[in-house]
Amino acid sequence: MSMPGRKEIEESYRGIQAHICEKIEQTDETGKFISDSWKRAGGGGGLTRVMAEGSVLEKAGVNFSAVEGEVTPMMAKNLGMDARWFFATGVSIVMHPHNPHVPIIHMNIRYFETDKGDYWFGGGIDLTPHYVVENQANYFHRSLKAVCDQFDSNWYAQFKKNADDYFFIPHRDETRGIGGIFYDHLSEDKQHSKSDILKFSLALGRLFPEVYSELINENRDKSFSDSEKEWQKLRRGRYVEFNLVYDRGTRFGLLSNGRTESILMSLPKEANWFYDFQPEKGSEESKTLSLLKKEIDWINA
Amino acid sequence: MSMPGRKEIEESYRGIQAHICEKIEQTDETGKFISDSWKRAGGGGGLTRVMAEGSVLEKAGVNFSAVEGEVTPMMAKNLGMDARWFFATGVSIVMHPHNPHVPIIHMNIRYFETDKGDYWFGGGIDLTPHYVVENQANYFHRSLKAVCDQFDSNWYAQFKKNADDYFFIPHRDETRGIGGIFYDHLSEDKQHSKSDILKFSLALGRLFPEVYSELINENRDKSFSDSEKEWQKLRRGRYVEFNLVYDRGTRFGLLSNGRTESILMSLPKEANWFYDFQPEKGSEESKTLSLLKKEIDWINA
Repeated sequence: MSMPGRKEIEESYRGIQAHICEKIEQTDETGKFISDSWKRAGGGGGLTRVMAEGSVLEKAGVNFSAVEGEVTPMMAKNLGMDARWFFATGVSIVMHPHNPHVPIIHMNIRYFETDKGDYWFGGGIDLTPHYVVENQANYFHRSLKAVCDQFDSNWYAQFKKNADDYFFIPHRDETRGIGGIFYDHLSEDKQHSKSDILKFSLALGRLFPEVYSELINENRDKSFSDSEKEWQKLRRGRYVEFNLVYDRGTRFGLLSNGRTESILMSLPKEANWFYDFQPEKGSEESKTLSLLKKEIDWINA
Repeated sequence: MSMPGRKEIEESYRGIQAHICEKIEQTDETGKFISDSWKRAGGGGGLTRVMAEGSVLEKAGVNFSAVEGEVTPMMAKNLGMDARWFFATGVSIVMHPHNPHVPIIHMNIRYFETDKGDYWFGGGIDLTPHYVVENQANYFHRSLKAVCDQFDSNWYAQFKKNADDYFFIPHRDETRGIGGIFYDHLSEDKQHSKSDILKFSLALGRLFPEVYSELINENRDKSFSDSEKEWQKLRRGRYVEFNLVYDRGTRFGLLSNGRTESILMSLPKEANWFYDFQPEKGSEESKTLSLLKKEIDWINA
């Protein structure tokens, strides 16, 4: 395989979007992703796919974009770039289920290049259970490690630590969920060709519907109480806080005049805030809070 | 009246908090503000007062704080300060009603001083109706102008423009509501003594419960449909977006390790996000959107 160019990467990411939507529709059984294609004024565009009110998924978005154009002062500042032209393509996903026993999931894979001849890949997957279930957290992390290990035996440990640091809400002193992996500025080196790094991101994209379908099927038939639903909405409030206050992609998108509805498709249909909510000691909610910490070894715990 | 010192300002702001809570409880009829007092690790503290599930107000917070201490690098950067010690006191309010025909309201008055001998006042009030009613917007702005005019005939026009610019959501190209007034870095000059500026902020504090009670009583008995309730939750989502993405006080508080629950008491109990919601042409929702613009002259419209 020769060194993949941007058109090839763009098309493979577009394929990943289609694959994920198809597989997740099968798992959901009744929900359908509608398609909304859009153009960017400065160059390029995207295809936003959104499911509302499926059997399992209340609101799910799978966004593909391939944009290019002039590097604005805003981008130069935020990305630390001194190039004049950029190209960026990626797939971005957030899925919010109805049932509080089904976790929220997020994935992003992206590729960036500039007119200076440099390029890099970035991405991540993380899981946000409203109720942490240890063996499911273990399954999720083992699955990510298995993909990482195909490419580099050090990646899982490095990228897991990145995710702990990135998917963290300082003002709550909580991680967003049980983490996952996060990587950025990955380009070829002695160990990895550009083609390998692309393959790694595509392998993550293919893993996504497998892992999430498994987690959906494990939990979709569990019954839940009104107070469990309230807890879910409160946890979704934390998700909103993370995305709007800290998430680099979200903030960069909003502040750089990106397509707002595609960026904010990550927000849940319903989120709640109660003043100073404290779960009861010994409750499942309290146990979950105790597990929203960095540096938990989910594989050997 | 001699030049007011920080203790006097602090006590007068504490009095404004008590006055507002008392008056708003009377208007609400059944809701009560609970009290939560807190200390700040670096110096000072506050009293957070919160009402949940009143007759009219679903969630309302009136926060008083008087904090002091070392200027951290974070503060120096965000506030452009080169002092070593600061003192800050203020009252911050957000009220979210049950009924979508009752508007959301926000007020903040604050005083800041440093060991370099400088000080300034800041503050603002703005109104966020879920449905804009022109004569009520007119009443709100006339009331603010009347208070401003007692101190400076130029202030209303200046501070109204500031509010248009400040309470604006760029990524939605919408103002948060119908604006109001916003001022910052106000200190004595030839026209205004320090005592006058303090009196101005206290006059706003006393105006608050009068104006909001009037707006509550005008709208509290209006019936509303499920779809009007959904629209309210969507507008509350915009409120969350503004506060978490742009509001300087909120972001500074969160990023500088402030008391999270007091800062985020401004968020509504329930907020919704629907992908790419578009109100029907000619609907009341569409009319409201058309009025969420800067530079509307609400007094002479």
